[in-house]
Amino acid sequence: MIMETKKPLILISNDDGYQAKGINELVRMVRDYGDVLVCAPDGPRSGQACAFSATVPLTLTQLHQEDGLQIWACNGSPVDCVKMALAELCPRRPDLVIGGINHGDNASVNTHYSGTMGVTLEGCMKYISSIAFSLCDHRADADFTPLEPYIRQMTQRVLAEGLPQGVCLNVNFPLVNVFKGVKICRMSRGTWLNEVTRCHHPRDYDYWWMVGHYQNDEPEAEDTDRWALDHGYVAITPTRVDVTAYEAMEQLKSFTV
Amino acid sequence: MIMETKKPLILISNDDGYQAKGINELVRMVRDYGDVLVCAPDGPRSGQACAFSATVPLTLTQLHQEDGLQIWACNGSPVDCVKMALAELCPRRPDLVIGGINHGDNASVNTHYSGTMGVTLEGCMKYISSIAFSLCDHRADADFTPLEPYIRQMTQRVLAEGLPQGVCLNVNFPLVNVFKGVKICRMSRGTWLNEVTRCHHPRDYDYWWMVGHYQNDEPEAEDTDRWALDHGYVAITPTRVDVTAYEAMEQLKSFTV
Repeated sequence: MIMETKKPLILISNDDGYQAKGINELVRMVRDYGDVLVCAPDGPRSGQACAFSATVPLTLTQLHQEDGLQIWACNGSPVDCVKMALAELCPRRPDLVIGGINHGDNASVNTHYSGTMGVTLEGCMKYISSIAFSLCDHRADADFTPLEPYIRQMTQRVLAEGLPQGVCLNVNFPLVNVFKGVKICRMSRGTWLNEVTRCHHPRDYDYWWMVGHYQNDEPEAEDTDRWALDHGYVAITPTRVDVTAYEAMEQLKSFTV
Repeated sequence: MIMETKKPLILISNDDGYQAKGINELVRMVRDYGDVLVCAPDGPRSGQACAFSATVPLTLTQLHQEDGLQIWACNGSPVDCVKMALAELCPRRPDLVIGGINHGDNASVNTHYSGTMGVTLEGCMKYISSIAFSLCDHRADADFTPLEPYIRQMTQRVLAEGLPQGVCLNVNFPLVNVFKGVKICRMSRGTWLNEVTRCHHPRDYDYWWMVGHYQNDEPEAEDTDRWALDHGYVAITPTRVDVTAYEAMEQLKSFTV
């Protein structure tokens, strides 16, 4: 029976859905390092952040089972998938949660909108080592093979060494043929501009699509994730569950009187 | 014509929907301090975090217009509401974005799931001073009147003084008759347990509801938001857009070789 070994257990989800190339490539890359349980959305859930389904009932469908690999689809959000897997599917506590590989970057403020990061933060909030992998290529047939040695090494390493409590990794890969190296980065400041496009419905009302383009608000800052990606480096941004602005606490003391 | 004065402009949204008591009470409390534009979901959107609608077209419906107050409903998420208001409805750049008043707390890890915090983070990501107000009372008819002097004072103060760049306020009020005071807090560590409940459908399949209960993982820590709320204090948690774990960067340097 699957999952009764002493191998590490790796829980994988994403926001592009179980059918996406990125998650299937990820499974292929990390299977050597443990039993793999996939619980992923039954379709695309981009931009779902840490959303969970407060009012919609969830369902699970088993898609695949073989030695060391189970694949399930869930009708909910990326975070729902992790919560459902932890509560109902995992035979033991996972040693690692991985989100991705996302089709498209999750650097800078996209961290906050990303369902891939939702997966990873959810794992981290449950005190499990967690990583998000994303590639700066939205195409359905994106080529993930250059990422393989990096993903294998990081997976092995985190399984062996763990991560600091309350910290997960947001790993973004640039769209280049050869990576220049790996940088530990901070999240860059950036702004989405022209985010909505108005259209007119044949029934004579307006509606809007969320689109927009990203503007880097500190393009010269060489310590940021966006700079690394724009210059051909793999960007590892260590990311906190505790979002307290400690540096602002003193200044805000005047609010208490 | 509304909105052509030099008054401050306050943009308000929430995740309980435009019809909720909390947002209508908030509008009443802060109208003295500026023109108010409400753009809120057309129904409940709890647990929507920073989700935006990547694949669903958005619509807007004007519900109310009078001198100094406009109210719009949007079919999207809390973050969609802020993005749509900024792009299509605001006659000038808002001076303040407020999320709330939420029916239910948004302390500890709920920060990450909260649509009220989604509103506030979205304002902060657009470099606008932003506050989330939440009351530890889920009831539809919750009594928000004890909050009024605090909300008025904080609104005035933030309009007058602003907030540090990249920092917004997550303000939670305990459910007590008289607040003991106000504390500047850090986000406490906590875990949602028993998060899903399995049910059986009459058509003979299983489905699950997201429920669960919150466990405070550091109940003795007097500097946390949960401690403050559990002891009758108003909790102000300054919250960062930049979620980089700076303290972990040195330790992760070994990942770059």
